[in-house]
Amino acid sequence: MSKTLKDFLADCESLGTLRIIVTNNTAVLEARGRMENLFYVPRVPTYANMHNDHFEFHLNMADIQRVKFEELPAKQGNFTTYCIRLFKPEAEKASLSLFLQWGKPGAYEPGQVEAFIRLRETYGAEWFPIWEVLPEPIPAGGH
Amino acid sequence: MSKTLKDFLADCESLGTLRIIVTNNTAVLEARGRMENLFYVPRVPTYANMHNDHFEFHLNMADIQRVKFEELPAKQGNFTTYCIRLFKPEAEKASLSLFLQWGKPGAYEPGQVEAFIRLRETYGAEWFPIWEVLPEPIPAGGH
Repeated sequence: MSKTLKDFLADCESLGTLRIIVTNNTAVLEARGRMENLFYVPRVPTYANMHNDHFEFHLNMADIQRVKFEELPAKQGNFTTYCIRLFKPEAEKASLSLFLQWGKPGAYEPGQVEAFIRLRETYGAEWFPIWEVLPEPIPAGGH
Repeated sequence: MSKTLKDFLADCESLGTLRIIVTNNTAVLEARGRMENLFYVPRVPTYANMHNDHFEFHLNMADIQRVKFEELPAKQGNFTTYCIRLFKPEAEKASLSLFLQWGKPGAYEPGQVEAFIRLRETYGAEWFPIWEVLPEPIPAGGH
């Protein structure tokens, strides 16, 4: 299977509502939303982008080497968590984490867990995206 | 003036709607919301926390050494941006950025820019919070 990270992110729309987590170990932001309407701009071709009314999301795909599916007991409460972690080369901590979002702990949307399992079967529990040959990114001027 | 970062974060409620930005340079998440209803838990006493319907926010205040107010021309568009950056010791990039959120570019809520200026006058354009003596944080089990 020769899928790119861009393919993968598009497939993540099937997961329904996610808790999208970005941390630098000092600050953590966790946004609730779907991975949908991603867009790409020529100025920063390696970036996946998303805007909606509540949050904005950007990911430099060129940094990501490894994708891992995790199915684990919740740290607080008696239910299972389903998470996808995206790592830079040799990183121990994920650059991006995508948790299936529960309404109440352990109460997922219908079909959501099945979509997670299907995605894991498609990509494997640990997956190394193939690298697209892309132009050099222009440093993000952003914020 | 002997204010703590906790005092400062409480004062940030006056800023109205913010663009709260956390990045690790690979992924960026920008949530739109007010700095309000912050809470603190004994298990991780150095963490400021916020939950609402759209996002969750956590900040390890013990990591932050320096707070800087920035008033700059927008990188895209002809308007002024107002931002507060929080830095770890010796860090060049901010661990947390708080931008005044505009409706349309440059269109701020009434009183928002004035609140930013007032806060900057109170704390100074660059401010080093005093450090509270707090118990050692227990490593965040979280996500």
